[in-house]
This record gives sequence, C-alpha cells and structure tokens, in this order.
Amino acid sequence: MEPKAEHTVRSYAEELRRLREMVARMGGLAERQVADSTIALVRRDAEMATEVMGRDAAIDALEREIENLCIRLLALRQPVGQDLRLVVAVLKISHDIERIGDYARNAAKRAIVVSQQPPLGSLNGFQRMAVLVQENLKGAMDALVNNDAARADEVWAADEPIDEVYNGIFREMLTFMMEDPRNITAATHLLFVAKNLERIGDHATNIAETVHYAVSGDKLPEERPKADSSAFAVVRPPA
Amino acid sequence: MEPKAEHTVRSYAEELRRLREMVARMGGLAERQVADSTIALVRRDAEMATEVMGRDAAIDALEREIENLCIRLLALRQPVGQDLRLVVAVLKISHDIERIGDYARNAAKRAIVVSQQPPLGSLNGFQRMAVLVQENLKGAMDALVNNDAARADEVWAADEPIDEVYNGIFREMLTFMMEDPRNITAATHLLFVAKNLERIGDHATNIAETVHYAVSGDKLPEERPKADSSAFAVVRPPA
Repeated sequence: MEPKAEHTVRSYAEELRRLREMVARMGGLAERQVADSTIALVRRDAEMATEVMGRDAAIDALEREIENLCIRLLALRQPVGQDLRLVVAVLKISHDIERIGDYARNAAKRAIVVSQQPPLGSLNGFQRMAVLVQENLKGAMDALVNNDAARADEVWAADEPIDEVYNGIFREMLTFMMEDPRNITAATHLLFVAKNLERIGDHATNIAETVHYAVSGDKLPEERPKADSSAFAVVRPPA
Repeated sequence: MEPKAEHTVRSYAEELRRLREMVARMGGLAERQVADSTIALVRRDAEMATEVMGRDAAIDALEREIENLCIRLLALRQPVGQDLRLVVAVLKISHDIERIGDYARNAAKRAIVVSQQPPLGSLNGFQRMAVLVQENLKGAMDALVNNDAARADEVWAADEPIDEVYNGIFREMLTFMMEDPRNITAATHLLFVAKNLERIGDHATNIAETVHYAVSGDKLPEERPKADSSAFAVVRPPA
C-alpha cells in the first residue's frame, strides 16, 4: 500500500474517532450540569448554582468546535454511507446537547431564587427526575460512541417514567400554591425547573433517535411512548 | 459547454433552490401554527386548538424530507464553501423549526385546558408576543431565502422586546395566582404558553445566527442582547 494513501485513510478514521470523542465529552459536560444544577437546587446552594451557570459557555464552545470539524470533514473527506450519516447525526446531536446545557443553566438560575424563598417539601422528585434524565443521556451517548442501535432503542423507549415523575411534581407544586400564596414564587420557579428536566429528557430521546438512524440507516416510528399529561392537568383549590 | 455537464450543474442549483423552498415552507407552517395556537388561546376556541395540534405532523414530516435531501446532496454533489455551509445550516434550521412546531402544539394543548377555566384578563400580552415572534421567524426565513446576512442580523438583535413582554406576563400571572387560588390552574398553563412563545423567539434568533454564518462564513459574537429576567423574578402575595 502506498504510504501517503494509508496516512490519509488512517487520519480520516482518526478524525471520525475524534468527532465521536468530542460529542461524548460534550454529553458528559451536559450530564454533569444536569446533576449539579439539581444538587444546587436541593441543597439550596446559590454559590454552586452560580458556578453551574458559568460552566455553560464550555458546552457552547464545544458545539462550535464540533460544527467546524464536521464542515471540515464534509469538505475534505466527502464521506458517504454510514460515515456521512454519522457526521449529519453529530451536527444534530451537538445542537441537542447545547439546548440541554441551556436548560440546565436556566435550572441553576432558578435554583438561586428558590434558595431565597421558603422551602417547599423534600424536592425528592427533582432528584429522581435528574437521575432518570442523566441515565438516558448517558445511554444515548454510549449508543453513539459504541455504534449501538439496540442501546439507542432502549433509551428511546425509556422516557415514560420521567414524564410520570414530572406529572407528580406538577400537581404537587400547584397544591403548594393553593395552600399558601407565599409559596407561589418558589413553586412557579420549581415548575419551570421540572419542565426543564422534562425537556432535557425529550432531547435525550431525540439523540437516541438520531443515533438509531446514524447506525442503522432506518428511522424509528414517528410516535413514541409519551406519558406527559401535565399540559392537560387541572388542580382544584382546597374547598 | 457539454450538454450533460450543463444539465448536472443546473439540476444541482435546482436542488439547492428546492432545499431553500422546503425550509421556507416549513418555516411558513410553523409561523401559522404560532399564530393559530395564540388565536385559539385568546378566543378560547378548543376546536381550533385541536386542529393546530393535528397539523404539527406535517412539520415533522417536512423535517425528515429536508434531512433526506441534505444527505442526498452531501453524498452525490459533495458541496463545498458556501453551498456546504447552506446544507449544514438547513439541517440545523429544520431542527429548530421542528422544535418551534412542538412548542406551538404544546401551546395549543394548553389553550384547550385554559378554555375550560375561568377567564384571566385580556391575554393581550400573548398576542403581542406571538406577533413579535412571528415577525422574527419570518425575518429569519426571508434572510435564508434571500441570502441576506444583514436581515439575519436585524432579527438576531430583535429578541429583547419579546423578553420584555414575557417578563410582564410572568408577573401578571403570578399576581392572578396570589389574588385567588381558583386562578392557579389557568395561570400556570398560561405561564407555560408564554414560556413556549419565548422559546420560539429564542429559536428564531438561533435560526438568524445560523443564516448569518451560512451566508457570510463568520460567526456572530457569543453573547446577544437578552432582557429575560423572569428566571430571577420574585412576586410577593398581597399583604
């Protein structure tokens, strides 16, 4: 084999590997942001929340780096087939992770306000939601790094428990509001935090769907299991 | 010129034109969804809201069609330079529009619940927000279709008034909640509708940013004007 060609082939494979690694790193940062913003919320730790907010810039910077590498790869390597699907998938996935970072930053921002308000219950539901969401995000990233369509499908089907916890929090917060108007500010911000976690879960599902397609070349069915009924929720004030 | 080559060139240009048209059509559908979900909310028209929800599938289908065309273009035409940036931009933009469609569908779903609750004020703020958001979305799509970086920059800088209306609605809804616990269900759903409109505005800004890059090859600065202070908002119950 001609040395120059071999060099070209090897560095192309390396570039693709580097691309996967960068996305995995971006996903890891986002997972940590989800975990830490929730810890800051539950511990009423405004300092930690401020730190989380500051770390979001690193995620945004990675999205730009990844996009530049994708454009370079498309222009210079002109990938086809599965490689092309991977590059297109990575463009979409890095956009999803960037949104996840924004939601975590917004949750951290609200954790600061909540820490200055009267405490509302144990916030256990938030920790449960955060753990479930992180697991899905991690699963989706593992599926991407290992080219594992079956793992992606597991994540794609695992959104329902998250929605159930979310629906429980929604009703709990509305009940707190009705019991005492002094709870309204904190409960409203907590509702938005829960919604952020739910949206992060949606993005993890999106990522899993994208990985499935990148690996297999097939699309998943349009409708996926959905248990979020909170948009229809009605809670009545105590009589 | 050799006829075959000319044919290839022409149909490549046609494909790129078709790509822009498809995204413009997708953006137009999303604009209409934003407009109609807000009309359904303000008129308390559950039937119209249900219709809006059903129309979201067409937007999702267009995203898939656009992605397929992008992959075809990348594989068969191997675009470089501005054409490559356009294809990458379209992949990101169609993902943003798909999210906009989801937010509009969620707003329509909540409009149904709100229509069954006691009315809360005029909802003028929602109409103002929807108009501003639609203008930005339309501006971003026009910038894309006309390759107009200056138009994209205008949209990018026009997010502030949306955030201001949003902050006003946020405080208004919290005040309704504190005045009477029977307002809490409707006010909570209305808060989420306002948040949806605000996020749609964010996506329009994202699209403008992507168009700017696709047209000029330069990135906009990382920080853009932001007036959303609602994540820090505290409203006190009446004494």
